[in-house]
Amino acid sequence: MSEKSNQLQSTDHSLFPNSRRIYVQGSRPDVQVPMREIALQDTRLPSGELQSNDPIRVYDTSGSWGDNKFHGDCTKGLPKLREGWLLERDDVESYEGRTVKPQDDGYLSDVHKASAALKEDKRQFVEFENDSPRVYKAKSGHGVTQLHYAKKGIITPEMEYIAIRENMKLQSYREGLEMSETAGRNTLNIQHPGQPWGASIPEEITPEFVRSEVARGRAIIPSNVNHLELEPMIIGRNFLVKINTNIGNSAVASSIEEEVEKMRWSVKWGGDTLMDLSTGKNIHQTREWILRNCPVPVGTVPIYQALEKVNGKAEDLTWEIFADTLIEQAEQGVDYFTIHAAVLLPFVPLTAKRMTGIVSRGGSIMAKWCLAHHKENFLYTHWDDICEIMAAYDVAFSIGDGLRPGSIADANDEAQFAELKTQGDLTRRAWEYGVQVMNEGPGHVPMHMIHENMEKQLEWCDEAPFYTLGPLTTDVAPGYDHITSGIGAAMIGWYGTAMLCYVTPKEHLGLPNKDDVREGVITYKIAAHAADLAKGHPASQYRDNALSKARFEFRWEDQFNLSLDPEKARSYHDETLPQEGAKSAHFCSMCGPNFCSMKITEDVRKYAEEQGVSEDEALTQGMAEKSEEFKQSGGEVYISNS
Amino acid sequence: MSEKSNQLQSTDHSLFPNSRRIYVQGSRPDVQVPMREIALQDTRLPSGELQSNDPIRVYDTSGSWGDNKFHGDCTKGLPKLREGWLLERDDVESYEGRTVKPQDDGYLSDVHKASAALKEDKRQFVEFENDSPRVYKAKSGHGVTQLHYAKKGIITPEMEYIAIRENMKLQSYREGLEMSETAGRNTLNIQHPGQPWGASIPEEITPEFVRSEVARGRAIIPSNVNHLELEPMIIGRNFLVKINTNIGNSAVASSIEEEVEKMRWSVKWGGDTLMDLSTGKNIHQTREWILRNCPVPVGTVPIYQALEKVNGKAEDLTWEIFADTLIEQAEQGVDYFTIHAAVLLPFVPLTAKRMTGIVSRGGSIMAKWCLAHHKENFLYTHWDDICEIMAAYDVAFSIGDGLRPGSIADANDEAQFAELKTQGDLTRRAWEYGVQVMNEGPGHVPMHMIHENMEKQLEWCDEAPFYTLGPLTTDVAPGYDHITSGIGAAMIGWYGTAMLCYVTPKEHLGLPNKDDVREGVITYKIAAHAADLAKGHPASQYRDNALSKARFEFRWEDQFNLSLDPEKARSYHDETLPQEGAKSAHFCSMCGPNFCSMKITEDVRKYAEEQGVSEDEALTQGMAEKSEEFKQSGGEVYISNS
Repeated sequence: MSEKSNQLQSTDHSLFPNSRRIYVQGSRPDVQVPMREIALQDTRLPSGELQSNDPIRVYDTSGSWGDNKFHGDCTKGLPKLREGWLLERDDVESYEGRTVKPQDDGYLSDVHKASAALKEDKRQFVEFENDSPRVYKAKSGHGVTQLHYAKKGIITPEMEYIAIRENMKLQSYREGLEMSETAGRNTLNIQHPGQPWGASIPEEITPEFVRSEVARGRAIIPSNVNHLELEPMIIGRNFLVKINTNIGNSAVASSIEEEVEKMRWSVKWGGDTLMDLSTGKNIHQTREWILRNCPVPVGTVPIYQALEKVNGKAEDLTWEIFADTLIEQAEQGVDYFTIHAAVLLPFVPLTAKRMTGIVSRGGSIMAKWCLAHHKENFLYTHWDDICEIMAAYDVAFSIGDGLRPGSIADANDEAQFAELKTQGDLTRRAWEYGVQVMNEGPGHVPMHMIHENMEKQLEWCDEAPFYTLGPLTTDVAPGYDHITSGIGAAMIGWYGTAMLCYVTPKEHLGLPNKDDVREGVITYKIAAHAADLAKGHPASQYRDNALSKARFEFRWEDQFNLSLDPEKARSYHDETLPQEGAKSAHFCSMCGPNFCSMKITEDVRKYAEEQGVSEDEALTQGMAEKSEEFKQSGGEVYISNS
Repeated sequence: MSEKSNQLQSTDHSLFPNSRRIYVQGSRPDVQVPMREIALQDTRLPSGELQSNDPIRVYDTSGSWGDNKFHGDCTKGLPKLREGWLLERDDVESYEGRTVKPQDDGYLSDVHKASAALKEDKRQFVEFENDSPRVYKAKSGHGVTQLHYAKKGIITPEMEYIAIRENMKLQSYREGLEMSETAGRNTLNIQHPGQPWGASIPEEITPEFVRSEVARGRAIIPSNVNHLELEPMIIGRNFLVKINTNIGNSAVASSIEEEVEKMRWSVKWGGDTLMDLSTGKNIHQTREWILRNCPVPVGTVPIYQALEKVNGKAEDLTWEIFADTLIEQAEQGVDYFTIHAAVLLPFVPLTAKRMTGIVSRGGSIMAKWCLAHHKENFLYTHWDDICEIMAAYDVAFSIGDGLRPGSIADANDEAQFAELKTQGDLTRRAWEYGVQVMNEGPGHVPMHMIHENMEKQLEWCDEAPFYTLGPLTTDVAPGYDHITSGIGAAMIGWYGTAMLCYVTPKEHLGLPNKDDVREGVITYKIAAHAADLAKGHPASQYRDNALSKARFEFRWEDQFNLSLDPEKARSYHDETLPQEGAKSAHFCSMCGPNFCSMKITEDVRKYAEEQGVSEDEALTQGMAEKSEEFKQSGGEVYISNS
């Protein structure tokens, strides 16, 4: 992370060259959907003629921070984009929020807090200046969740925003199609697989389709009424696969400024949601800073903060402390809560014979509580209470998988599946309160056991979105777990998982730094995109095609600029061929200036056209006859040169 | 790569701490199979009692270079391990090999060569000193291939060596099993999937099983009679999935010393075979250096060198020049040849409408030749001649896929599958000559289209081993193509691909350096291992289990040492917690000293035992009843704190 704490105002735009921020206008003036548009160079045809290439528009998660016309300030927060939409619905009331208490930041008293602010690792502690301490929640008797609206047949501005955002098909793909056709190549060759898992993505994603998927519980729009800075997005298997990134201070390292900067770094590279997993000091303030500056949904695991409030003693946790924490975080604007309510007392002993027991932090906390009191998990017994709180702020559930396997040996065992089935029960109960729900999944699972996870989740949880951590497909590569898990993530994304929780190279070993976050995000963008291609999402392949066309035509700059990480692609190229001229040369470092397979292909194509060797001719000459012909001619006897 | 050219003698052993080289003795004194044995720390039981952990043995590809008792010298080459086995078969004769000509190294004359040696990029050019210019080949009328022996029912020392090598089950797994049982955990939980693709791996890999798989054509043992330094290994889907690494100078960069050191670096990290794809100057000498020092099979694409001999003009290639090149390389000891004989003239126009045409270098060369002469591919018309040459030296075929797709848009198209079918015809013809065969595969293929490749290859090529490049599952991430392809590689490995050709982060962009090679190898070791787990290979999961057990028990040193890249795992840990004490501490940087999910699990386990909460109790209490119970009790009404 940045060493300097006051660099939050500026955003580095140099990482995405030839790009500009555009906004696609919706049906009303205040629906303006941001995209990044990448300008391309002209194609030089064999005739020497130049042919222009339409720019490519890509999904952009960076929020206003990615708009170089925006001159914001982290200490003020982002503009409240959704406030108008919220207020015109006339179903929320504002009230004086809960007073922040010293223990919210992990302190026992104000004296402790002041002392911590001064001493803590010499990092500066700054409270976010909130102009208005008032917060929103549902008026009594009113539903304010996107699920509630969807079920009533209402298409919210959030839904329209999402339809435009998901519809790269309209925004760029059609242009991409024309581009390809004019160049005389294949049509885009969008692949529609057999899809045994029943993903069903329409040719055009309409606001009505968004509404219907949310109403069915198949997709969620995490959007707390107090996180008005949010740019709406959707999580569901009939949409683009999303990725979540985790940040969070801990007792051992990091500071507020670092976490805020890590958030901006994460959304710059394409993180779709962000989980703040802070566990150390300044926990409330860290979250405030992040929420006020974050254009994507923010999730938390409230039990982490509740545990801080009881000084880390799981057995001292109470429903009252937990409920107070839920209110605290809902008022701040957290968009989804991970709640480990399906870790039931009877399931805990099922983990005793495991290779790696319970590896989820939340799961461990609840297991410890259950055993200490020999009572059922209070999150389970208070499920209805929790649903009511969350319904009032439109906080979505991410029902935790506290018993997920922590090793290949423990994959798909009884403990894991008992919990998953319970997640399904809780899902249906939450829907009755109008609360949006997704379910968390594993973990460590070898490839051949991944599909069963998806299958059972769809069946038991009634198609609520699945949100998985990886899964890691082997345990033997600490230091490379972004890759061990990226494999599993791509596969389960294809099978229908709606959101993939990223894993960085530091998983199991330490806290990710800026490079690790970038590596983790890009790896998961790859997994998500590979899954979108395999699902046949109409808004996915145009970017592959544009990049491949640029590659084939030796448009090096376009190849870099269209990639998920232009800076890295360019720097790798420059390591071998640093000269500026090499970027327009018709060769690359692998084959050198005298030979290039792509160059030869150009010749082949030209030759094939000249010779009039037609496709028909090729097809009538089957290789079977060819083979026969040469068999009959008999092999010439080899003559040794000795 | 190393900056210093004279560092070839020493090998750095510090990258694998707590490891020692052992040799497992076979049935005869000269069958001694190297393995790396990793010593583990003791487990500290909750009682405080110490319990020892048996060491873990892993497959070791590093050859004598990985034995710190070996004091070899690159200028002398490795010991000729297989010479005794070869000579006792009494079916080869030695003869004065082909004289090296200046054009073998890409020079027109000796004057050019001398001039190049002096000037070339200021790197020193050194000829490998060969004591004996004599080489081996089959006596007239004798078969000398492993396929020939296998079909005759002969178990060669190579086959026994391989059985021991593959049998980690015997060497380490059983010890692993005991280890796990004495610790009171699950048995090893080896997963046997449904395996719709019919992999069939026995519990114990016997020399007879090796023989039968080779005889059936399902596996190959690349082992040129002139590469006697080779430590035998097998490529087949009922064995451990292997990975190939590519090195090679090119016209643009690199030197002999760099390539030799890159080879040693590659086998150190686990490369199972090595392809020398050199295309620039000193091509013969580079190969000589590599072969004499390389403990793993070496493959080449002979058409690359043939093209150098005709100054890069594909249309000037002739059968005579190609045949001479085959002899040249076979005499040096190349173990397998990639030959693009299935790029037939009628298939070439099928590529004209592709997004990225022909991207394989070999495929482009042959396509250009075919069109220039409007004649059928001379590699195809001379197939029988080629088979005879290769049979005489036991060079295996790697039948090239010159028309593989170079982009997602071109995957699984007519051109690709027409070639694959022809590869099958050529496979059967080669078998008739006793030549071992594998088939090369793609390329760029989205996830949902990968399985079809495996399916068709098994059917059309009669189960000959498949050897794929990735496949890359998306085109949008240059700079990360080790990951885009690692996903596809793991999947196709699971489906039955026998060897995965690695891809480095520099793919499409430049030449890999030392870090890139390491990153590429580890990524592909992950893919191969994930596939082994998914195939249910009995010798795979013990390492995952050992590492997970170490993780659970906070044996940090063991966690590092058991990983594929101990140095990286350790360095990542140390970035956050550099203190030596942290490596024995019962916490990690993610959760800090006051809280740790694994620590809590220990408590849970202890508590569960004390309380006698039995598995039965858990199972009789279904969550369904639980759910019902709480539904009936009714939800308490939430009381706001406002």
